Amino acid sequence: MIEQFKCLVCDKKYPVDVFKTFCPDCKDPLLYHYPERKRTIRRERSHTLEVFLDFLPFDKIDHTFLLGEGNSPLVKLRQISKENHVPSLYVKDESFNPTGSFKDRGTTVAIQKVVSLKIDKIGTVSTGNMATSTAAYGAKAGRKTFVFIKEDISEEKLLSCGIYGPIMIKVMGDYGELTYKSFELGRRHNIYFMNSVDPFRIEGYKVIGLETYLQLGSQVPEYIFVPVSSGGHLIGLIKAYTELKQQGFIGNLPTFIGVQAEGCSPIARAFQSGASRVERINKANTVAQAITNPDPPGGNMLLNLIRVNSGSILAVSDTEILNAQKMLAEKEGIFCLPASATTLAGFFQMSKAHTFKDTDRIVLVVTGTGMKNLKVLKPSVMKFFHSSLSDLEKTLLSTID
Amino acid sequence: MIEQFKCLVCDKKYPVDVFKTFCPDCKDPLLYHYPERKRTIRRERSHTLEVFLDFLPFDKIDHTFLLGEGNSPLVKLRQISKENHVPSLYVKDESFNPTGSFKDRGTTVAIQKVVSLKIDKIGTVSTGNMATSTAAYGAKAGRKTFVFIKEDISEEKLLSCGIYGPIMIKVMGDYGELTYKSFELGRRHNIYFMNSVDPFRIEGYKVIGLETYLQLGSQVPEYIFVPVSSGGHLIGLIKAYTELKQQGFIGNLPTFIGVQAEGCSPIARAFQSGASRVERINKANTVAQAITNPDPPGGNMLLNLIRVNSGSILAVSDTEILNAQKMLAEKEGIFCLPASATTLAGFFQMSKAHTFKDTDRIVLVVTGTGMKNLKVLKPSVMKFFHSSLSDLEKTLLSTID
Repeated sequence: MIEQFKCLVCDKKYPVDVFKTFCPDCKDPLLYHYPERKRTIRRERSHTLEVFLDFLPFDKIDHTFLLGEGNSPLVKLRQISKENHVPSLYVKDESFNPTGSFKDRGTTVAIQKVVSLKIDKIGTVSTGNMATSTAAYGAKAGRKTFVFIKEDISEEKLLSCGIYGPIMIKVMGDYGELTYKSFELGRRHNIYFMNSVDPFRIEGYKVIGLETYLQLGSQVPEYIFVPVSSGGHLIGLIKAYTELKQQGFIGNLPTFIGVQAEGCSPIARAFQSGASRVERINKANTVAQAITNPDPPGGNMLLNLIRVNSGSILAVSDTEILNAQKMLAEKEGIFCLPASATTLAGFFQMSKAHTFKDTDRIVLVVTGTGMKNLKVLKPSVMKFFHSSLSDLEKTLLSTID
Repeated sequence: MIEQFKCLVCDKKYPVDVFKTFCPDCKDPLLYHYPERKRTIRRERSHTLEVFLDFLPFDKIDHTFLLGEGNSPLVKLRQISKENHVPSLYVKDESFNPTGSFKDRGTTVAIQKVVSLKIDKIGTVSTGNMATSTAAYGAKAGRKTFVFIKEDISEEKLLSCGIYGPIMIKVMGDYGELTYKSFELGRRHNIYFMNSVDPFRIEGYKVIGLETYLQLGSQVPEYIFVPVSSGGHLIGLIKAYTELKQQGFIGNLPTFIGVQAEGCSPIARAFQSGASRVERINKANTVAQAITNPDPPGGNMLLNLIRVNSGSILAVSDTEILNAQKMLAEKEGIFCLPASATTLAGFFQMSKAHTFKDTDRIVLVVTGTGMKNLKVLKPSVMKFFHSSLSDLEKTLLSTID
């Protein structure tokens, strides 16, 4: 069987080639296309990639290259739901992954492909979570790993990626051009650049949606809120539920709400203005660093998918984001990235104009752990006191009253 | 049924009281004592605390206060095993927990007790992972949470704990005295201070060992390497396997190897010198900050347990620790705390004088994610290059050759 990619816009199919992942005609990202056949969910299997094997682009998993990814918890937000008189809110917590972000879902699937195709060099263009994830899996798989980064990368990010031993090249110049160049060099030198909207990454992101369906007792959540940057994550979630519906597992799709940060919201702007294409923005400026793609390669596809499915793309301010981040930690014990807190902020924003039903189950996808970006937190908002040992009882009592 | 604590040294029992967790005679930590009865493992349950309910100090779990802890992966170290011609090495990776460390295993069990006893205030004395874990679960349970910290705490640690909104009190004075004082104030003002060797924490740490047993196909690993600070974690693992043996699940215990950092190794010193009691040290000095208890409250108990079970307590240098940390990341894609890397360093040290059998299964418990302590990493050991966009191909090729 020849595997195929498909362009959703042109409705054309192409043989799978990891060095050609964009439509030659319209330049939109290609998606992995499955032949028509009955697919099953293997609940009895222990690893999540085995459970959903029929929904993945291979027929077996090599466990040698796994790092314990997946099966992230779906946690009910008890206090926030109660205090805000809202229906059942859940967090699907992707910080429970090997490098602390949902990027590992995509990388693990792409790495399985790398292994099956016997490709010995991989790479990515990233400044953050995707670089770390690719470096970790590249190390586990014993593949030479290249990471192209911007000149102004913070030392923190350099370290958390560099510990895995990839070859990091700091490149001066335009980031969009760098991405384009990476594909060109990859094709020429047999390096698989698994960048943000890579079709195999998208297949991996699907698993987040498939797990959520099982965790809700084989039911569809009414709403899914997801942070949006390049668009790949949300495209994966929509693809997951679309395939569940095609296979007769479910009757309706969830309503998908993508959330961007106001300081970098090209897709939200296009959506709100009714434009048919996403315009790149010049400069991102937001605390939500993990979702700052000014020229999202999956933007046009996403715009179309969301409109067809009656979803929405919102933009939230940095203040809304930081408040939501604090609320998730203080009320629910979940410390997430600012980028991930956009989902709760988006939920509150939507609540102003929309009444959720009491029976609605609303899932917020938390994409990564807040430990990755402590710098956005202000010590001044923390509650701390000073005391000598002898005055400790007095100090303690003053905080109780 | 009246629940009981037991002092292993004095062989006396006491009624359970979360405000009296040390033996009034010998001052050793008390352990939770189970009445004689048949216990089963409920494999069909989904949450790990349900699977091992018969080995835990309550007869039901309140899911409202869980954060997705447990069921951490057991990952085989394929490349390190192969390159070093050693038998099967595994990592039990506790960084897959809500706050990124094994402390969550203890906190979640202690919190279940808090809820069942309707205690509304909790606390801990810690400078690091335990503070963060306690603050997160305290937030989830809606309990007022007090964290006593040292004056010189780093801003990084302050932030990652403070985000959950606990009341943090920076206290000047001796750390040992502060711990003692916390128990006194806790008793007086009804605040449950769940400090390092708390008996319910130790019950929680047991679950790490119980899961490992199931993950190995209901078999006992021949060796378990664990970082040692206050002693509670290793005491929990020994208790887990001892109970499995008492219940007839297994015939032999694993050999337990505790590992300390040379710069803070009071238990290793006592063990190696044949002393019967642990002498406190004056000042800790090591990169492995998470295991720097100079006066470990579980030290004497551990010394005895390890001798009875023919285990060992080793000390490894900072150089050995940092090399092991780098190796785990570069060869296996696992980025752990320096404290956690002591286990691999300890394995290599022990290998010099001891020949492991080909059939030996060796488990290294990784206690926390390296993201929590990026500061020990040196940018100078990272492989990075600079390039312009136009020179990128040349730069790339120079790194491939």
